[in-house]
Amino acid sequence: MTRNRLWRLDRHPEGQDFAAALSLHEAELAPLAPGEVRVRARWLSMDAGTRMWMGPRTDGYQPPLPLGQPMAGLVLGTVEESRDPRFPAGALVRGFGQWAEWSTVQPDLAALEPVDGDLADLRQHFGALGLNAWTALAGLQEVARIQPGEWLVVSAAAGATGSLACQIGRNLGARVIGIAGGPDKCRYLLDELGIEQAIDYRGEDVAARLAAIPGGVHAYFDNVGGPLLDAVLPNMAHYGRVAVCGMVAAYDRDEPLPGPARFDQVLMRRLRIEGFFVPDFLHRGDEFLPRLQGWLGAGRLALRFDEWSGIERVLDAYAHMLRGGNIGKVIVRVTD
Amino acid sequence: MTRNRLWRLDRHPEGQDFAAALSLHEAELAPLAPGEVRVRARWLSMDAGTRMWMGPRTDGYQPPLPLGQPMAGLVLGTVEESRDPRFPAGALVRGFGQWAEWSTVQPDLAALEPVDGDLADLRQHFGALGLNAWTALAGLQEVARIQPGEWLVVSAAAGATGSLACQIGRNLGARVIGIAGGPDKCRYLLDELGIEQAIDYRGEDVAARLAAIPGGVHAYFDNVGGPLLDAVLPNMAHYGRVAVCGMVAAYDRDEPLPGPARFDQVLMRRLRIEGFFVPDFLHRGDEFLPRLQGWLGAGRLALRFDEWSGIERVLDAYAHMLRGGNIGKVIVRVTD
Repeated sequence: MTRNRLWRLDRHPEGQDFAAALSLHEAELAPLAPGEVRVRARWLSMDAGTRMWMGPRTDGYQPPLPLGQPMAGLVLGTVEESRDPRFPAGALVRGFGQWAEWSTVQPDLAALEPVDGDLADLRQHFGALGLNAWTALAGLQEVARIQPGEWLVVSAAAGATGSLACQIGRNLGARVIGIAGGPDKCRYLLDELGIEQAIDYRGEDVAARLAAIPGGVHAYFDNVGGPLLDAVLPNMAHYGRVAVCGMVAAYDRDEPLPGPARFDQVLMRRLRIEGFFVPDFLHRGDEFLPRLQGWLGAGRLALRFDEWSGIERVLDAYAHMLRGGNIGKVIVRVTD
Repeated sequence: MTRNRLWRLDRHPEGQDFAAALSLHEAELAPLAPGEVRVRARWLSMDAGTRMWMGPRTDGYQPPLPLGQPMAGLVLGTVEESRDPRFPAGALVRGFGQWAEWSTVQPDLAALEPVDGDLADLRQHFGALGLNAWTALAGLQEVARIQPGEWLVVSAAAGATGSLACQIGRNLGARVIGIAGGPDKCRYLLDELGIEQAIDYRGEDVAARLAAIPGGVHAYFDNVGGPLLDAVLPNMAHYGRVAVCGMVAAYDRDEPLPGPARFDQVLMRRLRIEGFFVPDFLHRGDEFLPRLQGWLGAGRLALRFDEWSGIERVLDAYAHMLRGGNIGKVIVRVTD
């Protein structure tokens, strides 16, 4: 029988000590139950949001993952065996599976969907056509409702969702300011993504930079929460919008972060702050996907990959991503 | 010549020590400049939001009032002399004038408007037809977008805007929960306004009460900010809305209040938090006013008045209102 290798969540991690919380196991693949699909992973997606699922808090947007079970995450791979006729063997699919060589999923629970196996770079199903891109498009178009000529600020701008949000914002006609940590990332934002301004939050006074924006910031695509939000709020234009996409500053804490110190600006400037997540937009694929494909084809949407190799490197890749060591999207290649 | 009595803002008040910051003066009325209108005040409106105008902070929704000048506020009175043909002598008008027996205003800057002089109780121009009512309607209909059957929470629910928001929420079909301080106010909410639940924040655990709402709170009409918002956020339904109308908890502080401790819920529950103020809705009168008049006429919108008498009582009435000593709307009768 085929033996699977998988990462098991043994306990809730403290901070970023993942080695003490997850372990790599071997297990035999069980026969498929009716309706199940087995996917051989080609790549695993490393996403900051999944850090929340590892913790004990029950007030997140989904319940904590059960301990003693495989860690969950987005998988791009090939159907190897199927008891669901929608997903025949050989199809390339993407969905929520496990940090494992083989993921066994219930397609609907996994939001499994077939993706184009003829794409030149298949990794773009985790990139310009992936859920980070859907998230960026939903946040900018549906939540922040960006208009041409507006000033848009993006935090964690060199990360996967952030760098896509920078480009999509630019494609929608906004003047984009990216906030990232360190000069390399800022250079990437300016030189490769071609946005208007980059702010290095480690070396610069973010609030002072934003205070120089004439008329103020119209929209903020926030991946981070915490102190950066405090720097942005008093520098927003009246009627500005904050699309709250993530709070990476809070994910590895057992307690919530303090609220934004300048929350009073919500009233003073009549701001709108709105949280969203991509599962609410998955039914919009017929509209979103052609738009993203168009930009990808026209060379107006690119995602740099920070690719690691081998299931055994998952924890290293994941911690690297959460530390912000990456530019672009961190993925782990599991098989060719 | 006629001598006017007016309250002058001498310095920025510390906390609620208004006697040290404002003084009652007599001054002769100057001849009207072109375009000006002189209004003899019948009533002055005591509004918590004006506390912010007295302070030194320049990051509010309007600049601080200049020191050494009359204090500004809403006036309901009779045009006595006019150099604007839209406002003939004898007309009853409402607008932003001064805490004075006579207000001299530029009609457009003052948002001066004629109101119905034949209304049975003229004070309702500060009540069911006044700007507090406009504020409540705008916040519930345009910002919170209340739907029939939803759970609506209103803070400072026994105050002017709050008690109108409770009734308008009820009229729009919501199930209304009012938060107020003390058993008398809670009885008023239940017995006179006929809302579904009342919570005494001084004597009860607000969060625990709200946690018992099946399905969570759909909308929060917030007049207060601060700790009450912390109690509400984790008890909201997914996709809940917070209409931020006021932050009375913050108005007499020189520093902003801390942000809501449970701001993380914005992401976890995909909440929308939106600040608004009534000047943005003044052009909607043709739509708002008939609606309010209909409810007033049908006995479905009432405002209790806490009426004080005499220009010399203004500071007492104002401090009483800011301490939450009132039920309903605090006004000062200046002349008959």
